[in-house]
This record gives sequence, structure tokens and C-alpha cells, in this order.
Amino acid sequence: MPIPLLNCDVGESFGAWQMGRDADVMAFVDCANIACGFHAGDPDVMRRTVGYAVANNVRIGAHPAYPDLVGFGRRSLAVSPQEAENLVLYQIGALEAVCRAEGARVSYVKPHGALYNDMARDLELLRATMRAVKAWDKTLPLLVMSTADTAAIRALAQEEGVTLWFEVFADRAYDGEGRLVSRREPDAVHHDEATIVAQAVSLARGEALTARDGRSLSLAADTLCVHGDNESSVAAVRAIREAFDALEDA
Amino acid sequence: MPIPLLNCDVGESFGAWQMGRDADVMAFVDCANIACGFHAGDPDVMRRTVGYAVANNVRIGAHPAYPDLVGFGRRSLAVSPQEAENLVLYQIGALEAVCRAEGARVSYVKPHGALYNDMARDLELLRATMRAVKAWDKTLPLLVMSTADTAAIRALAQEEGVTLWFEVFADRAYDGEGRLVSRREPDAVHHDEATIVAQAVSLARGEALTARDGRSLSLAADTLCVHGDNESSVAAVRAIREAFDALEDA
Amino acid sequence: MPIPLLNCDVGESFGAWQMGRDADVMAFVDCANIACGFHAGDPDVMRRTVGYAVANNVRIGAHPAYPDLVGFGRRSLAVSPQEAENLVLYQIGALEAVCRAEGARVSYVKPHGALYNDMARDLELLRATMRAVKAWDKTLPLLVMSTADTAAIRALAQEEGVTLWFEVFADRAYDGEGRLVSRREPDAVHHDEATIVAQAVSLARGEALTARDGRSLSLAADTLCVHGDNESSVAAVRAIREAFDALEDA
Amino acid sequence: MPIPLLNCDVGESFGAWQMGRDADVMAFVDCANIACGFHAGDPDVMRRTVGYAVANNVRIGAHPAYPDLVGFGRRSLAVSPQEAENLVLYQIGALEAVCRAEGARVSYVKPHGALYNDMARDLELLRATMRAVKAWDKTLPLLVMSTADTAAIRALAQEEGVTLWFEVFADRAYDGEGRLVSRREPDAVHHDEATIVAQAVSLARGEALTARDGRSLSLAADTLCVHGDNESSVAAVRAIREAFDALEDA
Repeated sequence: MPIPLLNCDVGESFGAWQMGRDADVMAFVDCANIACGFHAGDPDVMRRTVGYAVANNVRIGAHPAYPDLVGFGRRSLAVSPQEAENLVLYQIGALEAVCRAEGARVSYVKPHGALYNDMARDLELLRATMRAVKAWDKTLPLLVMSTADTAAIRALAQEEGVTLWFEVFADRAYDGEGRLVSRREPDAVHHDEATIVAQAVSLARGEALTARDGRSLSLAADTLCVHGDNESSVAAVRAIREAFDALEDA
Repeated sequence: MPIPLLNCDVGESFGAWQMGRDADVMAFVDCANIACGFHAGDPDVMRRTVGYAVANNVRIGAHPAYPDLVGFGRRSLAVSPQEAENLVLYQIGALEAVCRAEGARVSYVKPHGALYNDMARDLELLRATMRAVKAWDKTLPLLVMSTADTAAIRALAQEEGVTLWFEVFADRAYDGEGRLVSRREPDAVHHDEATIVAQAVSLARGEALTARDGRSLSLAADTLCVHGDNESSVAAVRAIREAFDALEDA
Repeated sequence: MPIPLLNCDVGESFGAWQMGRDADVMAFVDCANIACGFHAGDPDVMRRTVGYAVANNVRIGAHPAYPDLVGFGRRSLAVSPQEAENLVLYQIGALEAVCRAEGARVSYVKPHGALYNDMARDLELLRATMRAVKAWDKTLPLLVMSTADTAAIRALAQEEGVTLWFEVFADRAYDGEGRLVSRREPDAVHHDEATIVAQAVSLARGEALTARDGRSLSLAADTLCVHGDNESSVAAVRAIREAFDALEDA
Repeated sequence: MPIPLLNCDVGESFGAWQMGRDADVMAFVDCANIACGFHAGDPDVMRRTVGYAVANNVRIGAHPAYPDLVGFGRRSLAVSPQEAENLVLYQIGALEAVCRAEGARVSYVKPHGALYNDMARDLELLRATMRAVKAWDKTLPLLVMSTADTAAIRALAQEEGVTLWFEVFADRAYDGEGRLVSRREPDAVHHDEATIVAQAVSLARGEALTARDGRSLSLAADTLCVHGDNESSVAAVRAIREAFDALEDA
């Protein structure tokens, strides 16, 4: 079982506003999910962020979102599947162009925020996203949330001819269906670095997690989401990286 | 001397707002300048417009603009050259992605409105636009305004390794430097179809025009800008098309 | 029973894009719902539209919406109640300032599109809108959709101290709960002028309508929504105006 | 001669992006220039910022800007005077509505960034801004940059019936005309707190400054611009406040 790739949302500054420790976290991740201008990022931020990724030899992924800067793409917007397909396409292409100027390419797609969550619940929205990826380059993997039962999503991906990367989280509690416990509930988010690293290592080893309700939970884990928001989250990413390197050497 | 290609701004609807007779004018033009979302166009309008172009076998050009929806990209915005380069890149890529979904490609770039005008006066802005085109695909032609003296622009294009297409206008009066007479002045715009067709044919034949100040004006004419705003402008495009077809047969 | 006021959405142009026959329809309505920049309208369009309203002695209402120009405010956006309250406030004030420059005032509030529909289903969103109105000027009426059972909405309005105007539609079929039949269903929208005028007159007389399922439906009707989109809808408004004038004279 | 009021740009966060030490700097200033959504600020940020101002008993000013979030309102945009008038009006009203929800009012207007600079050079743009202020509430002062020769601006203000507050800067070098030395030049900005406080005190006492070219410069100083960007700028504001309090006691 391969070690999960570490992916991180970056390029989420906008104009005069800075966000995240992009330059720092790049040293420890495999995959940079770069905002494409709809929830964050502007052409200059994108250019700079692609430059960081190239300098760190990190793969670049498009991180498309609903058009909602003020809400940071975190609010569901009732778009039609056709609208979703087109806005995902638009954002992938925009990032690709910026990549070309730095000698890079978009090599996967991870939808952001509410779009990511909504497509985990709405197969037509997921299909629309798959169609965008397929229209752009059907060899690009699409990141989707790993859950206990991924049969329907796998079937859809096969039908559409799109490759999936299942994504897991080291700093979040899971419920019995393998869905993330809502942030509004207590203990939904792990803040302790040791707990985060332990969950990451379990996921990487293919060990079952214990869900909130006590059930045992096996999750496909092609990639693990990490965060570069601040100093302590970057430290956690570094610790996960070191733990994964040790696994690989073992 | 080849007949100038007819190019037309299309895809300038936005959301619920319709603009232009895109479906009608496509029958008569060679090149469709498709808005990329910054002054007009949204991912759905872009998709639909690319579809019209494909159905009519019309070449697709990116029509990037300053980010100014409310001003329709017609107001100068004091961007830096680096900002200009990145926003042009972003828009080219966004359109390319939409094109791919329709089996098409972006095959040239024509900046829009104030950006087009500003880069005709500011060589650093022009160079920034050239760099965007070059970073994307250095084989793509960049449309620039034809004037009496294009030496500086040609030199810059050679330095940057970018191909230029010089653009002329059939419905506008020129001053002695080969610049368009401002719309604020009387008789700056020709409204009579016969006058428009006659100027188009003169330009296509490589004949000199008479400038506003009486000077004789020779203009390089790789492409001629036409308009699909309304029924009468579409009729003028059709008349120019027929006149050009007759030239070609002659 | 007073004759319902005729209200119409206007000022829905944006920048270079025109929409609606605002100048024409103003002659026949009592109330102009003016877009405030979030789904349509910009400061210049707002100024021009307020001018039309003043010239026609028509009351001006704020027509606030979700921030979604490309979706014309027709797509639900998952805002929090606090966000809703603040964005409604913002838009009311923006319109009031433009009104002052024309010697006018905002005299009621009618939320637009998805916000209007969502607040009819979500009492916390409705309460947030009421709080915005109350914070601005608690004497201003808030337009809400009239339904068969308005008890919960009336109770909330009383609790918040806000005046309601119940709104009815002459060109739409109703279901048994007094909700509009979805536009996706057949015969949801009346296109025939005689049918529209007849339903308007029934509503004005306080007569029960026959709902889609055959039930008899009594609707509070403080105001009737009309449309100025095109020539035929303006003609229907004129016909309703004449019918209402005849009722008043009777 | 009254002590200049300390004014500070605040409310320049946007959505998920934070900017400035608003809550800290409010303790030391008289006037809070609150962004109105066009260059920064959103309805929620505006509400929170108005709350801070009210809690600190600080006067609230509208801080309208060109519509340019990505450029933070710092890039000139070629708007017409009529467009300028309407966009300033729109922003004043939007802020007023948010103020009402916190029991406050807009009590002056300070244009932001490129709009502020452009109107110092273009009397028609300045007149447009004055007309917006006058249309809203002609008793509100409009902040303009103090220069060596303010005769033309004063004449215009008298013609339009608008009150001016002349604004000075403690952390910027002046040229002989009383204009700010461009940030691109060396020593244009004072970073040393003692220098900043000394210039503030000189301005408050009505003493002449020495301009960059050695000329003596007398500047009307109704208000002094201070900054709350970071810890050291807040410390400088505190030091100016203490120096001004000492002047007042003297």
C-alpha cells in the first residue's frame, strides 16, 4: 500500500490580503491545491504560488470553487450541474495558463470547500465535476472524500472514465459512515500534534480508525489533507512528513 | 496580399444579460474574439459561444480585458505590467479549458477595450501582453491596432518572439498617424453600410485611406474588426463578407 | 378592502447590459423594486432608475439579493442569518443614498429571487431580513409571499415589530398551500393576458382562487407583482392597471 | 488652532481575510475611516468595525473607493465624474445602513487610495465627490489632502457648498508644493517613531515643515492620518495621541 500523498490548500491570499504559510509548508507536502480566483487567489497570487510549488518540486492541483470570494467558497450555492462543469473547467484552465509561465502543469483537481462537500452528497454535481476534468484531461486524478462506502462514487468514476484519489484527514474525527464529524460538534477537530500524527500513520498503514460511534472504519487513503494556516499547523505537517518518511524507510 | 480575416467580438453576454447577435454574425466571420469573464462572458456564456464558433468553423480567439464588469472593460485601470501579464494568461487559459470541452482551441489573442487601447500607447503594457501570449503558446498571433508607423511594435514583437496580426477598422475614421478618431468627435464612426464596405475593400486591396487631416495612410491589414451588436451591423458584416468573397474570386 | 398596489422589479440592467422596459412600465405601477447592485443594478443604473420612479411618482423599494451577479440572485446561497441581515442592510442604505440625490427615499423592502424564496421557507432567514428592515427604519413595510397560512410569519413580524405587505401573483398558478407552482411544471405560468387580468381582479376583490389541486384559496393581497420584461408584459401591466382603476371607480 | 483629529483607515478586512489592528488602534483615534465594500470591507466586516468604533466613541467616516477589490482600490480607474458621484453615494449609504444597526451614523467622508489621489489632481472628479457628499448630507465634511496651495479646492468647495477637512501626514515626506513624495523615492516614508511624532506635533502647532527641496511649507491640518496596520504603527499612533493630549493640556 503506497504512502498517501500529502496535499495542502495554498494560494489562498487575495490582492492585498495574505493567508497561510505557503512558502513554509511547501517544503513538506507532495501536492499543492492552488486556489483559482473564485474563492481566493488572483492571477498574481496564483503565479507566485505556482513559483513556490515549482521551486519545491511539488505537484500542482487546481482547487476550483463556487464563485464566492466574500464567503471563501464555504457556502453552498445552488448551481446547476452544467454551471458546475463550466466553472470547474474555467478554473482549471486559468491555473494551467499561469503554470505554463512557470514551466509547470496542473496535474490533478481538488474542488474546494462547499463544492467539495456538496459533490460528496450530490452525484449529479460530482458527475459534472468529473466531466470538467475529463474534458480538460482525462488522465488527471480528481480528489474526493474517502468514506466507508465508496461504491457509488467508484461506479460513477468508471462510467465517466475518470481516475479518483480518495482523500483522508488526520485532524478530524469521523462518524460511522466515514464522514467528517461537523466542526460544530465537540472534539470534531484534533488540535494535538501527537493525535494528528498517530491518525495519519494509521491511515497510511491501512489500519482501521475508530469512528465517533465506536465502529471500525477502513478508509481508502490515496492522499492526506494537511494545513499550512499557521506555525503550529506547519509543524504538524512536518511531523507527519517525518513519520511518513520513516514508514517508507521501514 | 491576403484578404484580411474578419474578426468579431462575441460572447459578451453575462449571466441573465444578453448582448449581441452572436449566433447570426458567426456565419460571416473568420475569427471569434470570445470574452473571458473579466469584462463580459461567464463560463456558461463562454461554453455556448465556443459551441457557435465550432458549429460555424470559426477560429476562436481569447479576448482578455481588465477586471471591470460594470465598466465592460472600457475604462483604463492602472495595472502593472506584471499584473497585466498574469491577468491575460489567466483569461487565455480559462477560455482554452472551455474550448477543450467543445473540441476546439484558442488560436489567437485580441485584448479588449481599454487594455487594447492602453497597450497601443504603452510599450511596457504591450510587452507584458506579449509575454503572456508567449508563455501560453508562442505560435499564437496577438492582434494589435494597425497604425501608420508600426516599427516600434514590430521591433518589440521580434524581441519577444511573438507573431502580430495588425487590425484595421472599416467603420472608423483615422487620423494622420493612423489612430482611430475619438468617438467623441463628429464623424468618427461610419454608419452607412456602403461607406463601411468601401473602406473595408480599400483596406483589403492594400489601398491607402485618406486620413481625417487629408494625409494618405497605408495600413497593414491582417484582420478587419466587424461588429455583431444588432441587425444592421450584422447586415454590414454580411456585405463585407460578400465583397471580400468577390475580391477573392477576382 | 384596498386595491393591491402594483409592484414591479426594475433597475435590473447592469453596466453595458440592458434589461427590462423600465421607463415604459413605470407609467402603470405603484411601486418600483429597484435592484441594489448584488444581483443587478450598479450605482449608475440605480440613479437612472430612481429618476424614472421620481418622474412617474412611483414609490421606491429596495430589492436586495444574494451577492450573485452571474446567477442574477436566483441561486440559493447558504448565508447565515447574520450575513443576511447585514447584506440586506447594506443594500437598503446604498439605494437610499442614490435616492437622496434624486430627492426620493426608500419606502419599502422586497427581497429578490432566491433570498425571497428562501426566507419564505426559513423563519430564521426571514427574521434576519426583518431585523435589517427594523434597524434601518421600522416603519418600512417588508414584502413577503402571501400563502394560505401566514400565521407563523405574522407572529414573527409582530415579535420583531415589522410591518408586512403580502404579495400575490396574477400570472402564476398556486398549489393548495398557496405556494407558487414551480416553473418547471406545465401551466405554472399564465401567458394569456385575459387570464392574468382575471386572476389580478379576483385577488383584488378578495375572491378565492382555485388552486392547482382544486382547493379554494384565500390570499391576503396587499400588493401584486407585475413584470416589465418585454412589450407584452408591459401591455399586461397596463391592462391590470385599467382593470384596477375601474374597480376603484366602481 | 485646534488639535488635528486623528483619523485611521479601518475595516479593511474582507471575508476570511484579516487586515489591520482595528480593535487596538480604535483606542487612540478620533475618526475611523471604514471601508465600504468596494476596495475592502464586506457587510459583516463593516458591522463589526462600526461596533468597535461605537464602543470606543470614535466618529465614523465613509471610506469609499473605486470598485477594485483585487487592487485594494490603489489603482486609478478611468471613471467619469457621474460614475464617481454615484459610486461614492452608494458606498456612503451602504455604510450608513450598517451604522444604524449599531446606533451610529456616518459623520464624514474620506475617499480611499487612488480615488483620493486622483481627485487631488482632477477638479472634475473632486467636484463629483463633493456632489455625492452634498446629495447625501451637505453638513458632512469631506477629507482632502492638504497642500501648499488649496485655493482652487477651497473655491470649488464653496461653490458646491461642502465643508472640507484638510488632511496631513506625519509619516511622509512632502515636496515643495505640499504633495507627498512618492513612495518609490528614498526616504519618502518615515519609519522612526520619534520623527513621526515630531512631524505630527509640528503640524498640530501650525509650524511650517521643511519640504524635500528645502522650502518652508505651511499646511492646513484639520486631521492627521495614522495607521493601524501592525504593532509598531499602533504604537506610533499611541505616541501621537499622548503628544497631542499633552499639547491640549498645555
